[in-house]
Amino acid sequence: MFAVTILGNNSAVPAFDRHPTSQVVTIDGANYLVDCGEGTQIQMINYKIRRSKISHIFISHLHGDHYFGLIGLINSFGLLSHQQDLHVYGPSPLKEIIEIQLKVADTKLPYNLNIHTISQPATLVDTDKLSIKCFRTNHRIECYGFSFQEKKSLRKLIPEKARSYEIPTAFYERLKHGEDYTNKAGEIIKNDWVTEANEAGKKYAFCADTKYDESLIPHIADADLIYHETTYLDNLRERAESRFHSTTKQAAQIALKANVKKLLIGHFSSKYDTLHEFEQEAREVFPNTELALEGAVYIV
Amino acid sequence: MFAVTILGNNSAVPAFDRHPTSQVVTIDGANYLVDCGEGTQIQMINYKIRRSKISHIFISHLHGDHYFGLIGLINSFGLLSHQQDLHVYGPSPLKEIIEIQLKVADTKLPYNLNIHTISQPATLVDTDKLSIKCFRTNHRIECYGFSFQEKKSLRKLIPEKARSYEIPTAFYERLKHGEDYTNKAGEIIKNDWVTEANEAGKKYAFCADTKYDESLIPHIADADLIYHETTYLDNLRERAESRFHSTTKQAAQIALKANVKKLLIGHFSSKYDTLHEFEQEAREVFPNTELALEGAVYIV
Repeated sequence: MFAVTILGNNSAVPAFDRHPTSQVVTIDGANYLVDCGEGTQIQMINYKIRRSKISHIFISHLHGDHYFGLIGLINSFGLLSHQQDLHVYGPSPLKEIIEIQLKVADTKLPYNLNIHTISQPATLVDTDKLSIKCFRTNHRIECYGFSFQEKKSLRKLIPEKARSYEIPTAFYERLKHGEDYTNKAGEIIKNDWVTEANEAGKKYAFCADTKYDESLIPHIADADLIYHETTYLDNLRERAESRFHSTTKQAAQIALKANVKKLLIGHFSSKYDTLHEFEQEAREVFPNTELALEGAVYIV
Repeated sequence: MFAVTILGNNSAVPAFDRHPTSQVVTIDGANYLVDCGEGTQIQMINYKIRRSKISHIFISHLHGDHYFGLIGLINSFGLLSHQQDLHVYGPSPLKEIIEIQLKVADTKLPYNLNIHTISQPATLVDTDKLSIKCFRTNHRIECYGFSFQEKKSLRKLIPEKARSYEIPTAFYERLKHGEDYTNKAGEIIKNDWVTEANEAGKKYAFCADTKYDESLIPHIADADLIYHETTYLDNLRERAESRFHSTTKQAAQIALKANVKKLLIGHFSSKYDTLHEFEQEAREVFPNTELALEGAVYIV
């Protein structure tokens, strides 16, 4: 499963039982945490996120509502005897901020903590199954979005066809990798007779905090799902512009131009006690929009 | 009113819907915050603590469960346009930790933030009505308790007596300050004919994190209420000792020896899902013990 669970959908200060930004991207049973506002570890308990499955945390920028919960989570991992390595990615000086707090408490973590400083667009994780990249967004301070691209390079076996050519099951894995099969009579069974192209891997992009900026589009184009902030309704475009945030219709416009399949909106200002107008306004521009609601799971 | 509201009563990691240490001491309408674990600002919203009434925050030590919520609170005060000066007291390098986080976010607070480093027992606040002192406790890292002593130096007027001597009401304030009154006939009305001694000011002491240590007693002796940590039940004395924490009976023993009127216990380890044994064990030694329960208000 490739899915996104929202732990916090609010901006700046907690309000109306909404919490600062945090979300969990789950791919093949691994949990990747994106941003970590204050209280994220409590939201994880509330929504039964398995903390032991987290080995990577991505911090978009150093405004407090996106990272004040990180030191608490790192500390609790230690107290809960987390064993596996933890990789944290974020802008400078995140490493310094975390390290001084561990030092003054004389904290000895029982796991390896690796804090990687990001300072430019880059590929952060690259495995057979997944590629995670960061890209710049347009915010008041240095800020990054993150894209999660699932890889499905293997071909899809058509079992009845493979059986009809009497290919031994032991060879099936090699068929998935695109090889032809030569049977005992020396006949070549072409790979594409018994396999077909797999569907492309899915893509999710988290666009962090940003003002309206079309330079994001190449990084998120054709994604299955993107999360784009909508701090304000569209009547506050000027305020959004001056604070380096986006409105509903601006987020929807980016989704439309980037040709994505679905848009998730969040990072709502604490001035709004209800959210239905956010959904309504964004859908006028991009119909396949959903509100990022805390505790909800969105399939990519 | 002089009272203590518990916002967090757990140690180390949040568990069983219990939160890390924080409490509000309310005296004459002012709120003094003592410790500020992660999520304190959300607990304040939950329990309707008026944040605008807070001008002083006291941090006992730099273990995360006692201060990780401070930066979020300071930041939110700014976003909520808090105006009055904020004074924060805590051990070094709290000031450095807070300041680096404000700096990287390019945060301009709309109020004066004064972070005072405490490094020895001292009087932190001293007004006509109140004295707040810090004292050392015995913990793994530098740690302070805080005592709140109400001052009631004024005498209590007995209105019917003052009227019987025909003392003008304009002179009542001076009677409260202990002056005699001379009437038009030149007769002296002695102050103690028309006033009586006021009850002594109340005292509350927060003993922070500490192992059993009788050197605390002079700082908390005869208090109306003290809060003493009980991280463990009494069968884990060795663990308590090695981690610089206290058990139920140790806390109760301190309360008994210090001749305090009432004991509040908290900072419960996350290994315990229920708390009734804490109450039971402490009461065997010191009967007037209560559990510090989140959201509950304890009158001093």
